[in-house]
Amino acid sequence: MRTTRILSCEDIGEIVGSVGIDALLDRLIARLETAFKELDSQNAVIPPRTGIHYQNPDLGLLEWMPASIGKGLASLKVVGYHPTNPGKRNLPTILSSIGLFDTTTGHLKCLVDGTFATALRTGAMTAIASKYMVEPKNGIVLGIVGSGAQAVTQIHALSRVFDIDRVLACDIDRSAADSLQERIQFTGLKVEVVELEGLKPLLESSDILCTCTSADPGSGPLFNDFSNRPNLHINAVGSDFPNKIELPISLLKRSFVCPDFKLQAQAEGECQQLLEQEIDTELSALLNSADLQNKAKDRLSVFDSTGHAYADYVTASLFEQLAQELGLGQELQLESIPQDPRDPYSFLGKALSAERTLHELRN
Amino acid sequence: MRTTRILSCEDIGEIVGSVGIDALLDRLIARLETAFKELDSQNAVIPPRTGIHYQNPDLGLLEWMPASIGKGLASLKVVGYHPTNPGKRNLPTILSSIGLFDTTTGHLKCLVDGTFATALRTGAMTAIASKYMVEPKNGIVLGIVGSGAQAVTQIHALSRVFDIDRVLACDIDRSAADSLQERIQFTGLKVEVVELEGLKPLLESSDILCTCTSADPGSGPLFNDFSNRPNLHINAVGSDFPNKIELPISLLKRSFVCPDFKLQAQAEGECQQLLEQEIDTELSALLNSADLQNKAKDRLSVFDSTGHAYADYVTASLFEQLAQELGLGQELQLESIPQDPRDPYSFLGKALSAERTLHELRN
Repeated sequence: MRTTRILSCEDIGEIVGSVGIDALLDRLIARLETAFKELDSQNAVIPPRTGIHYQNPDLGLLEWMPASIGKGLASLKVVGYHPTNPGKRNLPTILSSIGLFDTTTGHLKCLVDGTFATALRTGAMTAIASKYMVEPKNGIVLGIVGSGAQAVTQIHALSRVFDIDRVLACDIDRSAADSLQERIQFTGLKVEVVELEGLKPLLESSDILCTCTSADPGSGPLFNDFSNRPNLHINAVGSDFPNKIELPISLLKRSFVCPDFKLQAQAEGECQQLLEQEIDTELSALLNSADLQNKAKDRLSVFDSTGHAYADYVTASLFEQLAQELGLGQELQLESIPQDPRDPYSFLGKALSAERTLHELRN
Repeated sequence: MRTTRILSCEDIGEIVGSVGIDALLDRLIARLETAFKELDSQNAVIPPRTGIHYQNPDLGLLEWMPASIGKGLASLKVVGYHPTNPGKRNLPTILSSIGLFDTTTGHLKCLVDGTFATALRTGAMTAIASKYMVEPKNGIVLGIVGSGAQAVTQIHALSRVFDIDRVLACDIDRSAADSLQERIQFTGLKVEVVELEGLKPLLESSDILCTCTSADPGSGPLFNDFSNRPNLHINAVGSDFPNKIELPISLLKRSFVCPDFKLQAQAEGECQQLLEQEIDTELSALLNSADLQNKAKDRLSVFDSTGHAYADYVTASLFEQLAQELGLGQELQLESIPQDPRDPYSFLGKALSAERTLHELRN
């Protein structure tokens, strides 16, 4: 029989408790960095995500993000995106699970929560992109526009890679900005909350800026263009939906722009606003080119993060590996695997045989 | 917290043991019949399936089949299709799981095996289509081309709706045809195995014919056109892949053709061979029109079964309901649902707090 390992969120908690949240994030950053450096675009099959949109009663969608990278494994993340969850139901906007499949047989090897994985890998991807697009220096000023769930992992991941001096944060909902300090307390960083009127000074004094809002499609950009610091780097994290954008087009046009996943970013990221030739590179190519890295570091630069299915694959694989090492998770026989592949009822064994005997006697 | 109910294949076995395989199939047939009669194409969102194809080392694919029907629930079936599984690995061609989602929140409510569900619902859909396209009579001759796993549920489901007198079966692999009798023993029907040379008489003497092969894309049709019995009805089950067809085009062109899902059948079913105007109706419309039913019964007719995601939804929902009634399955907290939706780490509780304290002391 071939079992499926199911990792509950308690199992993830055990992993974090055992490895430590900083060490786990460091390990994920290192693994994603290697994975995207070595990404073999010829053998990988990673179609842009698709999904179904509905009103029930508010806007919601279910998306699936597949990744097959030609090593006998594939992943599929299913993501529910329901922006009214936090306000109406005390639930996160994103609820998700990730399945890991054996591509020799189609067997589901592992199912793991994708909610925490998504938050963690989104932060980690920002840290990696920023590492290759920002000249390191002491005392970095980090600007945060949108102080919700994503802000926590953006700040945490950047703090693992950069020496951050100040964190300036704002949110259209003041209570979100106000509670950010408590949520990132463990990083040792201090949050300076900025009123919406102070947004322009926030933008103008940042060395690294993260935009991570749930702005409605059609409502963007979040702000007008501004006089940026030389070599400002922006991580545009919120744009992940057709017609949802965060950055002004004039800013994008004068930036070095690097999406995580070009095709997807052109459909639902900041790259929706750009022509093909205005997009400078994709992350995996950036990681392999000192020339591109130097270009990015010398200018205003933007990482257009729409969320990459391969990052989900890497994250889920890391969780699976750690769970195996720590003996966590439940092994269930989920798929019915018949003793005789030509008899779909043969897995039923005794459940069927009594009835079959009765039936045969009757006939 | 919101838990996910996981039904293992043992749980499915308990359901079958409790309800009985005949009664379960009867219940599924009745429920699918009602569901497809009432299918509200305006509010349902059921995109044709998509997937990723690869060689690892043989042809394989992972597909996902979503269905949202506007009642606050959606399903996503993930299907692995690996035709070399039975011969090389003693595994079924199809391995699958089905997730049921709450479309208000995106929460994964239930995960259940999709392998048995797929076999069962494919049989049930054939029974429903045949019921509305075949004039009932005693002593029906049933022809089976392709005696693998699908043949079992095709015969079982048709036996629940029709009075079958003879079953004539063949397969390119003689051992498959030879073992079919044992696999359908419980139906009380006798299988007459036909050599490939006897295929033409098999075709010509059938009242109902099921084609359910794993023929390679590009290799079809399975046979040349033939002199069919008046009002022969064909269930074409095997065609479910671009360029994979089972029936000769001349036969299709003189038939009343009803796909389960027209858009999908045009992409990967027998309807690939037809023009738009040569497709007579879709199953849900047929069930609501006595006129169309009469037309189908008066002629050669074909049900082009590519596999409908809504049938997966209905089947998984039935399993979930029965599991609830019988107290089966495991409730797991799969998704990490933070206490504070703005803090993706807040579900970690004690796992994080020790480290946070340490961190704060250090800083």
